[in-house]
Amino acid sequence: MRLRLTPRDTTFFDLFAAQAIHLVTGANLLGEMLGADRSTRKEIGKRIADAEHAADDATHSIMRRLNQTFVTPFDRDDIYTLASGLDDCMDFMEEAADLIVLYKVDALPPRVSDQVQVLQRAAELTAEAMPRLRSMDSLSEYWVEINRLENQADKIHRKLLAQLFDEVTDPIQLMKVKEIVEKLEDAADAFEKVANTVETIALKES
Amino acid sequence: MRLRLTPRDTTFFDLFAAQAIHLVTGANLLGEMLGADRSTRKEIGKRIADAEHAADDATHSIMRRLNQTFVTPFDRDDIYTLASGLDDCMDFMEEAADLIVLYKVDALPPRVSDQVQVLQRAAELTAEAMPRLRSMDSLSEYWVEINRLENQADKIHRKLLAQLFDEVTDPIQLMKVKEIVEKLEDAADAFEKVANTVETIALKES
Amino acid sequence: MRLRLTPRDTTFFDLFAAQAIHLVTGANLLGEMLGADRSTRKEIGKRIADAEHAADDATHSIMRRLNQTFVTPFDRDDIYTLASGLDDCMDFMEEAADLIVLYKVDALPPRVSDQVQVLQRAAELTAEAMPRLRSMDSLSEYWVEINRLENQADKIHRKLLAQLFDEVTDPIQLMKVKEIVEKLEDAADAFEKVANTVETIALKES
Repeated sequence: MRLRLTPRDTTFFDLFAAQAIHLVTGANLLGEMLGADRSTRKEIGKRIADAEHAADDATHSIMRRLNQTFVTPFDRDDIYTLASGLDDCMDFMEEAADLIVLYKVDALPPRVSDQVQVLQRAAELTAEAMPRLRSMDSLSEYWVEINRLENQADKIHRKLLAQLFDEVTDPIQLMKVKEIVEKLEDAADAFEKVANTVETIALKES
Repeated sequence: MRLRLTPRDTTFFDLFAAQAIHLVTGANLLGEMLGADRSTRKEIGKRIADAEHAADDATHSIMRRLNQTFVTPFDRDDIYTLASGLDDCMDFMEEAADLIVLYKVDALPPRVSDQVQVLQRAAELTAEAMPRLRSMDSLSEYWVEINRLENQADKIHRKLLAQLFDEVTDPIQLMKVKEIVEKLEDAADAFEKVANTVETIALKES
Repeated sequence: MRLRLTPRDTTFFDLFAAQAIHLVTGANLLGEMLGADRSTRKEIGKRIADAEHAADDATHSIMRRLNQTFVTPFDRDDIYTLASGLDDCMDFMEEAADLIVLYKVDALPPRVSDQVQVLQRAAELTAEAMPRLRSMDSLSEYWVEINRLENQADKIHRKLLAQLFDEVTDPIQLMKVKEIVEKLEDAADAFEKVANTVETIALKES
């Protein structure tokens, strides 16, 4: 055990937990958006943008505190990577939602809902895991499960791509749906990166 | 105040200032390119490639000095991030210019000029800010203004995307213009990242 | 010369060498894939996926050891960057192979073989260089040659893009080939980044 000259700043844990809650909001709104009509989608899109701004503020709070705190609960670089990683999850989900509205894509293939369901589950698991960073308790279950979810997302994504190129004959429609599907896959990857960062932090502490 | 065993190496400030001047050159040439005919565009493209090589050399000088200097004026990581960030601004502008020539896109929508004007302003502000890193003087005005410009760039970009998908019916033409427009948006994002890095540096010093 | 309190952990060199060997396997299988018919391509794709998994395991071994080792042969950050960089090379090659199978692209332009030949040479050079990290011996030849190869890859890539937009009239076919070609270019860039990391490490040691 290392000797600490000052108590560890515990507020980081609260800030990470707060940041992750926005991900749950964002992922759930994205799920709602898929089932909605065009005008409701626009309104839901605004609420996702609000969630993204709130997450952004949370990220900035962490970065500010990081730059002004001498003793941090774990490596500065890992705090930075974790905060940016959580921010990326939100950004990709918001970009996907934004494109759905902007491109006026009415009908998305059913597998897109499967992608979003994986994101909803990943967001919940991430939000549940953040408070456990304090005690480093049962974090391995979290990252194992996120890795499993990311594999699942990857399979859905590949099937979706094959299906799009097999079935969609209008190239512009194909471009639109492909870009949305890829933002959702980027979001799944971003959740995995967060889990990898948590694994790194936990390994260093053990 | 930290005790310093050796004087801080001030040359980093000069190197950053030099690197940022190339961004002004690049952004202005990009503006010229939009108004030019196809053969002049090719010639301007070569001058942008030259500016990109010069910026690349400036980046390498910073990295080399960083690896050989024991005491740096601010955190090594921040110097690295700032130098790479400035390099990214140039790379994206050069890639956009390169695609305009390569894809032989004669008519670009007027909003592309708006995008480039934002980049020209961002490049000027960045070049003016770099020498002020020495004294950390009035840097907040710089990063606030860059953030405002990036928001503006983002709005232009979204309107452009909507317009392209509404108006361009030839999918191959759409692919070309979309890729150029996105490189310009990447450049605007890269300028914002540089401003964020400067903010981080200033916060640590304050 | 710095005084060392404990012997340097040499196993990192073996792990990097092992990781790089998978890149040679991957690049060579990619070359085989181009000349194969559709059903053989699928089978080769599985072998590339196996190589990617093996490389992934090698990366994780390095990261685990990094998190549990107190004295490392060079900067922790550089070890991390080198391991991630090698991993990226493999990922891009695997993604290109995966898309070739997924998109059922039968005929690829001859220049794609030129791209893959550059990757095969880059992989060999990288695998040969990794064991030399131990002695820091003749590494400059390696990174100079990789930079030359990347320039060559870049030229092939630009010519390929121009050719695709000139010759391919089916936009969906264009989208498919363009994405494959860009993954291969990303792989060439990733090899260059690895060489840049090695250069950084060597400069710090000199």
